[in-house]
Amino acid sequence: MTLKAGFLGYGLMGKAHANALARLPMFFPDAPEVERSVLIGRTVEALEEAADTLGFNRIESDWEAALDDIDILYNLGPTRIHVDPTVAALNRDIHVLCEKPLAPQTAGAEKMAEAARKSDAIAGVGYNYRYVPALQLAKRMLDAGEFGDVRRIRGQYLQGWQADPDDEWVWRNDVERSGSGALGDVGAHTIDLARWLIGGIDRVCGRLDTFVTERPVAGGDETRPVTTDDEYSAIATFENGATGVFEGSRVATTREGGNELELYGSRGGFRFDMERLNELEVYTRDDDGFERVLVTADDHPYMDAWWPTGHIIGWEHTFVHEHYEFLSAIEEGRSYSPDFETGVAVHRVVNAIQQSNEDGSWILV
Amino acid sequence: MTLKAGFLGYGLMGKAHANALARLPMFFPDAPEVERSVLIGRTVEALEEAADTLGFNRIESDWEAALDDIDILYNLGPTRIHVDPTVAALNRDIHVLCEKPLAPQTAGAEKMAEAARKSDAIAGVGYNYRYVPALQLAKRMLDAGEFGDVRRIRGQYLQGWQADPDDEWVWRNDVERSGSGALGDVGAHTIDLARWLIGGIDRVCGRLDTFVTERPVAGGDETRPVTTDDEYSAIATFENGATGVFEGSRVATTREGGNELELYGSRGGFRFDMERLNELEVYTRDDDGFERVLVTADDHPYMDAWWPTGHIIGWEHTFVHEHYEFLSAIEEGRSYSPDFETGVAVHRVVNAIQQSNEDGSWILV
Amino acid sequence: MTLKAGFLGYGLMGKAHANALARLPMFFPDAPEVERSVLIGRTVEALEEAADTLGFNRIESDWEAALDDIDILYNLGPTRIHVDPTVAALNRDIHVLCEKPLAPQTAGAEKMAEAARKSDAIAGVGYNYRYVPALQLAKRMLDAGEFGDVRRIRGQYLQGWQADPDDEWVWRNDVERSGSGALGDVGAHTIDLARWLIGGIDRVCGRLDTFVTERPVAGGDETRPVTTDDEYSAIATFENGATGVFEGSRVATTREGGNELELYGSRGGFRFDMERLNELEVYTRDDDGFERVLVTADDHPYMDAWWPTGHIIGWEHTFVHEHYEFLSAIEEGRSYSPDFETGVAVHRVVNAIQQSNEDGSWILV
Amino acid sequence: MTLKAGFLGYGLMGKAHANALARLPMFFPDAPEVERSVLIGRTVEALEEAADTLGFNRIESDWEAALDDIDILYNLGPTRIHVDPTVAALNRDIHVLCEKPLAPQTAGAEKMAEAARKSDAIAGVGYNYRYVPALQLAKRMLDAGEFGDVRRIRGQYLQGWQADPDDEWVWRNDVERSGSGALGDVGAHTIDLARWLIGGIDRVCGRLDTFVTERPVAGGDETRPVTTDDEYSAIATFENGATGVFEGSRVATTREGGNELELYGSRGGFRFDMERLNELEVYTRDDDGFERVLVTADDHPYMDAWWPTGHIIGWEHTFVHEHYEFLSAIEEGRSYSPDFETGVAVHRVVNAIQQSNEDGSWILV
Repeated sequence: MTLKAGFLGYGLMGKAHANALARLPMFFPDAPEVERSVLIGRTVEALEEAADTLGFNRIESDWEAALDDIDILYNLGPTRIHVDPTVAALNRDIHVLCEKPLAPQTAGAEKMAEAARKSDAIAGVGYNYRYVPALQLAKRMLDAGEFGDVRRIRGQYLQGWQADPDDEWVWRNDVERSGSGALGDVGAHTIDLARWLIGGIDRVCGRLDTFVTERPVAGGDETRPVTTDDEYSAIATFENGATGVFEGSRVATTREGGNELELYGSRGGFRFDMERLNELEVYTRDDDGFERVLVTADDHPYMDAWWPTGHIIGWEHTFVHEHYEFLSAIEEGRSYSPDFETGVAVHRVVNAIQQSNEDGSWILV
Repeated sequence: MTLKAGFLGYGLMGKAHANALARLPMFFPDAPEVERSVLIGRTVEALEEAADTLGFNRIESDWEAALDDIDILYNLGPTRIHVDPTVAALNRDIHVLCEKPLAPQTAGAEKMAEAARKSDAIAGVGYNYRYVPALQLAKRMLDAGEFGDVRRIRGQYLQGWQADPDDEWVWRNDVERSGSGALGDVGAHTIDLARWLIGGIDRVCGRLDTFVTERPVAGGDETRPVTTDDEYSAIATFENGATGVFEGSRVATTREGGNELELYGSRGGFRFDMERLNELEVYTRDDDGFERVLVTADDHPYMDAWWPTGHIIGWEHTFVHEHYEFLSAIEEGRSYSPDFETGVAVHRVVNAIQQSNEDGSWILV
Repeated sequence: MTLKAGFLGYGLMGKAHANALARLPMFFPDAPEVERSVLIGRTVEALEEAADTLGFNRIESDWEAALDDIDILYNLGPTRIHVDPTVAALNRDIHVLCEKPLAPQTAGAEKMAEAARKSDAIAGVGYNYRYVPALQLAKRMLDAGEFGDVRRIRGQYLQGWQADPDDEWVWRNDVERSGSGALGDVGAHTIDLARWLIGGIDRVCGRLDTFVTERPVAGGDETRPVTTDDEYSAIATFENGATGVFEGSRVATTREGGNELELYGSRGGFRFDMERLNELEVYTRDDDGFERVLVTADDHPYMDAWWPTGHIIGWEHTFVHEHYEFLSAIEEGRSYSPDFETGVAVHRVVNAIQQSNEDGSWILV
Repeated sequence: MTLKAGFLGYGLMGKAHANALARLPMFFPDAPEVERSVLIGRTVEALEEAADTLGFNRIESDWEAALDDIDILYNLGPTRIHVDPTVAALNRDIHVLCEKPLAPQTAGAEKMAEAARKSDAIAGVGYNYRYVPALQLAKRMLDAGEFGDVRRIRGQYLQGWQADPDDEWVWRNDVERSGSGALGDVGAHTIDLARWLIGGIDRVCGRLDTFVTERPVAGGDETRPVTTDDEYSAIATFENGATGVFEGSRVATTREGGNELELYGSRGGFRFDMERLNELEVYTRDDDGFERVLVTADDHPYMDAWWPTGHIIGWEHTFVHEHYEFLSAIEEGRSYSPDFETGVAVHRVVNAIQQSNEDGSWILV
């Protein structure tokens, strides 16, 4: 049986996911077959071009109509159009993989989670960094006790694409459309990874900064106000007794895509940097220093599907692994994680950090 | 017009090239269209499975018959089957992209180059590392004079897949089938990159080592002799006055895929390591130290085709770029480089190093 | 005129400072001459041995008597014996260089600062990391505007010497004697560096952790409770609008002496790690990535006094620079920074973090 | 008994050794006592100033007269004044520590070795890099078999202090005075380290380059010819079957003091860079990648004499360790290594590389 996929959105995420589907058969031949069936959007001309490039059979400008004919909805559009199509799909038992964050506001995310609970379909949220082989290896070692009891996790996702005050205004600078700035965008990844690795967050203290308060609109003399944070900082305590420190930015002058994660426990720890995503630095009791593991060997997570050891993969491969797991869960009728409950949980942490920023106090999640 | 491609070989290189063809339309939409037409090999069952995985329309066990129906031959099999099919294809004006090294012996490579000169078709040799964006950037900077007059180049391609004496015997350990060991295999890449960057080599002094002289055959108690080098060292002088030092190994215990290159001239230089192929360390007169450039920005070579800055690509992407250039040359009737003359030139350097090892003296190339 | 120095304390800090004095004449010949006059302590036998090793003329077990005969008091003992001898010395216009933190409690530090204000002598506090040439270079670049308006500073001083629960109890684990744990010990360095670089801190939110609540006493079966933090985390806002994130630990399993500092502003930034204290990674508008500067050139701060470029110095050299500046200030009758006001200011930040941990809210400094 | 030391030379090496002697008592209290007795040189005024700075009791412009009154001669002057004073001292059973290379020509070095054999005094040659704790650790691991049978060593000592054609002419550019250029200067260190680690070299092939053939004389319009190599490359085979690749330069545009060493054998290996001399990257069978060891722990070679773990030392400390070993050998009547036989052996390798460059063939050492 071939599963029919509909994509809502054809920007960066549309391309990342279409590419992932296109690559599955050659590298994960046991994955379910998926047909790139319909590409959903509003502007017919742009849709047609994207459908051609991304390999879709047809286009559709009415998302409700598109649901008639698909088994899976990939909701990859801007955050504000996540809720309704996702809920509608789940109500019809159509599987959904929705990009993060689930919704501009937690209420929307909760509505989605409610729909997911009632549905017979599978709902997943697009936290693709879980599928970096190096982080899978870290998780495997952590779960095996090689790092002992976790004491501290540090996550910083520092981007610099708006470092210059002259960098253009985008929808992500508008709190109405995006719900949050760096916090909800890159911070959500950090929070998800931290929760995945070491469990629930119970309390946070946070700070939001907006260093550039208005930005020029593309192709004009106009500027628009930035109503989101462009940088956040947070301290979090975890249910298991660990403490976390998180930072995220889109105005980090010195960085491109520095999604870094570091953890240590009573027996060891690891360090990771997305700019070198094939590497994991690990430290265990037998070590006298960090050991740089090139995570490309056959026995590393997902790597037997790719190239001989020493030949690195890229960012896009995380989406292939994500699809492999999501589609396998569908085929085998298994549950899938990260699911919408996860998505809501991340939302609550994001909210708590926002509230802490306003109240000037620690907030229970 | 869609070009019909025939692949001879379906191992690692078959997969790398099939993947590259599959990915072109989504990322390089202006590339010529190519149909994965026929997969050529000897064992029907394995062929059928590979054709299915790699996306070929049909299989063919007679390579001569396959030539009737293709526009391009990708010769990706073991070195010893490079010569005849390639020559036959070129004689019929079928374009050929042949993996390196061209042939076990220089004579075969020269025969191939002779056929290429006489043919109206385009012949390319698979030196894919030229298409690493970071190395394209290095080349661009070098050609712009940013490093001044080149003084020294160092190339070391250190693999460890046969570091252990118990690692199994493979055809690459047999001089009859492969022509050379680490020198012809990984060393050829280094030599090609050095020639591409700074020009012709005129003299070499070299040394070959075989540290493990016999290896176990898979699935048995037997061992077979290793008749190739498993490590080489060479000093080379270039026509432009620079000196090069090259090393290559497949028994480098401490390494996976360490294809490193370093160059400096009178004004600056660069360093590169394939395990971090998205990075180039550059040093120019204005610098006080190496600057680590993450080669993922839109204005970096080929990178506008991929992801936003900060999101890295992998080893396989070099093949996509290679195909893009090769196919564009076909479509536009341009010449293509690296061509078979390049392939022969690399052979001559390899031969000179081998002869130097035997004679104990410097050898003119 | 030769200045007579008295040292109170002969542990690690005693050695670091005695070594610094011993090395001044050869490398900073224009520094005032100092005689290692008297070593002050309580245990005569240990004192005698230390005086011999560290090159002191005589020993003295009564610190008040020792003051009769010295020009400078180096107060290098445990924190709890900082206040009285320092105040007494300043009251007699004897110069004082006191190790950090000034006192177990802020009240003591304020008393010391009060004495310093009234004294004609110079009072300095031992924040030696200011004298790392790489950080001096960073400060110089920052002050020259090369990094623009500061947005963020991150400081983490992660030590692992008590990572193992079996590591022995020391006085630093006792809140009565030390006033604070990792926060007051390593955190104070981070806070001082941050204030020195970018100015006053106005508000903090913090968290303290004690992961190992009791530790074995050396040479026995007994354990004692740990009443200090062994790890702290804090977010700080600065008067100039920047945000800081600070962390410190003595139970960081994966680290030795990782005193790291990172800063970025609207135009660039830097990164520093004490384990590689001769290096500064800088990023300015003209760069495409961090540039690794080996801070050993003649025109780098203090480096013309040492070795030719490329020959690195160590941690101990920071004390030589510190003495050079402190003694030159004495000789020239200049003011010296970091002074006791600085010491008190750091105390207030430390206190605010402690209070924030108790109250669960942001605290004004 | 206090040993009386005479220093011939008061430039960089004079300072490095005087500093080492000055620091011994505080950090290696069991080392023999040494008095900086007499500083020998030709220019009285400069001598007087140097004696004052370096802590010598008196000066002497007649080296023969100086020998009357010393127990140890430190021969630290330019290479051309190494032979006669050293031989004279040894003939009088005065211990000698002579900087490397022993002499401009091998004949002189052999004469020195002859004198050492006949003398009752101890003769040492100044290969200080053996005393880097990280390299001592590497040697210890190698000797314990942790790296297995050595396959390859790579040594590159790349300096850039004459990278610019406008950098001034110095005596080291004159073959009469120095005997050799980069080869004899920095290359000698690499050759010594390689021989120390893995044993004798039996055959070499080499290449010398002089990229800048004349240089300006300081303070004038004149230029002088460069008659030494400013860069060398060599391949060497070792008696134990390993192969070495060596490079050295003083015109390496991109480098300051890059003294790098890498070795691997059948079971593991290490990497080292003098710019990070407190670190050793090791790889053993149990590792999946290089482990970065910060060589500052108490159980690391010499490090219990210095600071707590995590606090790095510098280049100058190697001289302290060298003196400690040399003086201890004198006190205990032990033999000392590296001795003059070592110095001659390095000379022979240097000569063989020079001859290989002339003859264009491999040369037996």
